[in-house]
Parts: sequence; structure tokens; C-alpha cells
Amino acid sequence: MSPTVNHRITLAARPVNRAVQPADFRLDTAPMPVPSAGEVLLRTLYLSLDPYMRGRMSEAKSYAQPVQIGEVMVGEVVAEVVQSNDPTLVPGDTVLARIGWQEYGVLPAKGLIKVDGARAPLSHYLGVLGMPGMTGYFALLDIGKPRPGETVLVSAAAGAVGQVVGQLAKLKGCRVIGIAGEAEKCAYVTGELGFDAAIDYRGKDTDALVAELAALAPQGVDVFFDNVGGIIHDAAMMSLALKARVIICGAVAIYDRLETQDTGARWMRTILAKRVRMEGFLVFDYEPRRAEFLADMTAWLKGGLIRYREDVTEGLERAPEAFIGLLTGKNLGKQLIHVANPSSR
Amino acid sequence: MSPTVNHRITLAARPVNRAVQPADFRLDTAPMPVPSAGEVLLRTLYLSLDPYMRGRMSEAKSYAQPVQIGEVMVGEVVAEVVQSNDPTLVPGDTVLARIGWQEYGVLPAKGLIKVDGARAPLSHYLGVLGMPGMTGYFALLDIGKPRPGETVLVSAAAGAVGQVVGQLAKLKGCRVIGIAGEAEKCAYVTGELGFDAAIDYRGKDTDALVAELAALAPQGVDVFFDNVGGIIHDAAMMSLALKARVIICGAVAIYDRLETQDTGARWMRTILAKRVRMEGFLVFDYEPRRAEFLADMTAWLKGGLIRYREDVTEGLERAPEAFIGLLTGKNLGKQLIHVANPSSR
Repeated sequence: MSPTVNHRITLAARPVNRAVQPADFRLDTAPMPVPSAGEVLLRTLYLSLDPYMRGRMSEAKSYAQPVQIGEVMVGEVVAEVVQSNDPTLVPGDTVLARIGWQEYGVLPAKGLIKVDGARAPLSHYLGVLGMPGMTGYFALLDIGKPRPGETVLVSAAAGAVGQVVGQLAKLKGCRVIGIAGEAEKCAYVTGELGFDAAIDYRGKDTDALVAELAALAPQGVDVFFDNVGGIIHDAAMMSLALKARVIICGAVAIYDRLETQDTGARWMRTILAKRVRMEGFLVFDYEPRRAEFLADMTAWLKGGLIRYREDVTEGLERAPEAFIGLLTGKNLGKQLIHVANPSSR
Repeated sequence: MSPTVNHRITLAARPVNRAVQPADFRLDTAPMPVPSAGEVLLRTLYLSLDPYMRGRMSEAKSYAQPVQIGEVMVGEVVAEVVQSNDPTLVPGDTVLARIGWQEYGVLPAKGLIKVDGARAPLSHYLGVLGMPGMTGYFALLDIGKPRPGETVLVSAAAGAVGQVVGQLAKLKGCRVIGIAGEAEKCAYVTGELGFDAAIDYRGKDTDALVAELAALAPQGVDVFFDNVGGIIHDAAMMSLALKARVIICGAVAIYDRLETQDTGARWMRTILAKRVRMEGFLVFDYEPRRAEFLADMTAWLKGGLIRYREDVTEGLERAPEAFIGLLTGKNLGKQLIHVANPSSR
């Protein structure tokens, strides 16, 4: 029997210069969407939760439009095709789709990316084989350009992007230091992922972080992969080697102050004196090179050269709680919501 | 009759978190230096005054050692060889030498760069054919990578570096906006130098500068060549186009606060959202490519494609006053001190 309603999570209130709260979201029901010609009806299997979504909850100017109050929260899912009005997809196909935080959605078949559950677990296409993996891969290799023997520092090291960055840097012959917010995460990146060292930033100020970095990287940091901003950014900027490269990939430390101009220490004199290159990264720019990424990463995963951990929460209704956990560093590994299993067909 | 004493200007006091004052310098006399084997005695013809010297007056950590109290102020000069104990140079030769703010100095012949007064006025080797010219040339072309039709913004536009940057960007087919601190300077860069527009920043806050930039560059700034830092930096960062390049070449606006951490607006979210590349530049890195620069710039000067203005102050004793003028934007064009004429031989 087919379901007749669609459960969705919508934006109920904007967090303005404050942390996200459960009441900022609303679980509601809507009629099942109906695909028109050329469209497909999709059923969400896994929903990806990612820090960028915090930006969409804000009206502050950014590179993308904000979610409006009452609208479904944006997000990428792995979905199964339930009904297809397009010859390129048939029911049972699995695809990457940006239908957001809901059980069902309708999109044009054109533009959906097919994913193959036989080649890798479907959830991987939202992580190590998806947007976070591509982010780590292209940002590190294209902007960071790490050379053997160099020291690479990555913040949010146990997160979806950080895991990939650190392991990739190890593959390139670098020394890798991770920064994470819990002893368990630090143990994970130095143990299972093979990072050379990890720093637990909790309870430490900039000076303490600088002192730890000086001990771990006496020659300075050659590549800093910045996922968080804030005082970790500052400590890293004070610890750079000559000709360092700094990749600005995220700023989760300031995401609860999006409506206010970020102020603090400015590093222009450091950038000049050390001839630092700092560059911002958005993965969308690299969509044309997805195949190149997939080929490399699939091979590395198969060969055991890249390991990968997910943090899967069960049930769409728990997405707000899991998202708040992600923003406060509660997850270990890529945060996902398991919404449904593929049909047995 | 040979002179028996050497007039020099030494550092008398460090300006700590304040503007430079005449009393920070002392004009003194010292015995004539005597060259050893392999060395030459040099007589200063022109002394170059440059903003980086402000950094050398401070003990704050930088890419070079500070001048000690009582030591001769550092600086590059065009000098004439008076006496040579090395076969590679003979009296009357003219060279670039880093002997600082003094009439005479001794250096090893090895490492001195010969300059030819028949090819260009000797003073040009301290400016458009010297360090500032090389700075503008390599920083704009190698980091800025301006493409035809793009908008290039340069601060301190009438200064030694700014003049070169703007004209070079015009040669590359760009639209060029200069920022300078006086109507006369603005008229100079739009008139004599052919910039498309100029903004007089005096008396304006960040918002006013952003509004002017929005009117002059509605599509945003593609290359920002930053010689000054401070609120002009902020206004430019708020006016960037996607994929903009920002060259950090100087920060004269904060040079009187070198002992204090620079704080203010931070632009990480802009860098991320617009995928900005920001890079620091020091000309020393490009010394191996000096010949390439000289060939291009000499040809452009000869062809009238690059124009160039100097601001020459007469007499070594006036160097402190001229240097303070440079830091406060009083000069129009490359600031030089004329110390002596070449001998008539």
C-alpha cells in the first residue's frame, strides 16, 4: 500500500546570532508530491547533514539563497526512484538528489546523479564518495598542493571532510596533525586513520593551541585546512611556515554569529611576511571533475588506503537533534540520517 | 680633495605604537669606511625611501631583522664606486647597493648589481626599474593574473608600486581603479597614467568607499592590489567579484601599530563564499627573475607605454622628513633622496 502523506522538516524560526534550537524546525506532513512529465518521485533513504545548512537558515548574504520560513530544509539525499516519468530512470534506481529534509520529493530526472549500491554502500555517496569527499579531495590537492615531507594541519579532523583530508595528506607523504574536540576523536584520527598527531582543542585558548602546534610542528605548518574559523584559525595562522597555503573551507565556529560582522585578529602582516596563500573553496566549482574524484576515491577505499566512519542517526524526526549535535561537535564521522531502506525489489 | 668623514642617519629611538617623528633619527658623522680585499667604497647618489623601512624601526617580529638603536637606517641606494679592491668593479661604475641612509659605505663587490646610466636615469633603478617596479610587475602578473576586461583596484595608486600596477593592468586590457589620498594624485593617475577612475579616500569611512566602488565596479573587483591595509582593505574586500585575487603587498595604514595585534573585520566568510585567493608578496622571492622584468620594463618605458614620476628631495639630512611624508602620503610618485651627483670622470 502506497503512503499518502509525506513527512517533512521545515524551517520554523531563524536563529539570529544564537545557537540553533530544536524549536527552529517543525515536523509536518504534506500531500504526496506528484511527478509531472520528465520528473521522478523519489523516496529518501539517507539524508546528509552538513554544516553549510546553518548558513541556509540565516538571511545573511551568502553564496546561496536562504531557506524561507515554512519551507523544507535543504539538503542532499540518496533516494530511490519510486515512480518515473522519464525514460532515463526506472523505479528502484538510486540517485543523489537535493530534495531536502523530507521522505519524498519530486525532481526532474535530468540532473540527478545515479549511484550504484553494488559498488559502495549507498550512504557513502553522501560522504567519502560525495560532497564532503570531493571537498577534501579537490581543496587539498588543488589549493593545498601538499608536497611529501610537508606538515598538514586540519581542523574538524574527525568530521566528514577532515577524515578525508588527513588520510589523503598521508597518502601524499605529509606529516598530518588533526584538531578535534574530544579525546575519542583524537584517538580515532591518530589510531584508525593514521594521523601523526592530534590536538584536543577543548578548554584551550589561542596561546595554548599555539604552544602545542609549536611542539608538534617546529618547522611550521605548510598546509592548513580550515573547517572551523575562530581561535583555531588564529592559532594556525600564528604557526605557519613560509609559503604556507591556507584553505578556507568552513567556519563552523562562527556560524551562530552569521548576522554580525566577524571581527578579531587580522593576519595580513603574517600573510605578507610569510607569503601565505589563502583561498576559499566551494565544491560546486568542481562538479565537472566528479568522475576523476570518484575513480581515485573508489580505488583508495577498495584498497583500504582511505578509511571512513559514519555517524548514522535513525529517523527523519531526529534530524534537528542530530544537526544541532553536528554543529556542536557531537558526531564522530559523517553525520547521516537513515530515513528508509531500499525496496526489496 | 677626498672627504674624511661620512654623514649618516641612524636610528635614535623606536616609535612604539605611534607615528614616526624626526627625533627618531640622528644625523651623525663617522670616519670614512675603508674597503678590505674584495670590497668597494661606495658613494651614495640616490637613496630610496620605502614604506618597509617603518617595519625595520620596530622590534616586532617580521621577515627581516630590525635596525638596532644607533645603527644606520637600512635602505637601497644607487651608488658610485669610489675605490675598488675587486677586479669586477672600477671607480665610476654605478651599482645598486644596500648601504642605507649614509653618504658612503663599504660592501663586497660580489652581489652588487651594476646599473647603466646610459640606458635609463640612475634614479629609475630604485623605482620603476628597481624594487618597486619589480614588486608591481611580479605581484600583479604572477599572483593577480589579470585577464582582459577584468577590473583591477590598486591602493596607494600614485606611489612607486601603484603607478606600475595600474599601468601594467591597463596594458593587459583591464579596467583600472586607483585609490589615493589627494585630488592631485587622483588627477595624476587618471590623467597622466590613464587609469579609468580614481577614488580619493580622505575623510571617507568604509561604507562610503564601498558605495563608490559599487558605482565604479558594479560587477565587482577581480584583482585587488593592497598596499595599505586598514579600512581601504575592508572596503575592497566588501567589493570583490567571484574568484577575485587579493595581493597583500603592504599595510602602511597599520605601520604605526606594529607592536599591537591588528584586529578588525575578518573576511573569511567572504573568502569562502566568493572563492577569493589572497596571497602575500615579497619581492626578494623574485630576484632570480630580475632580467625578465628589466627587459619588459625597459622596453615599455622606451615605448612610452609606462610613465613614471619621482618625488625627489634634496640632501641626506632631509631623509627623515621625507620618510615621514612618505608614510603620511605626502609624496606624489616614488620618494627618493638625492645625495650626490656622479663624479665628472
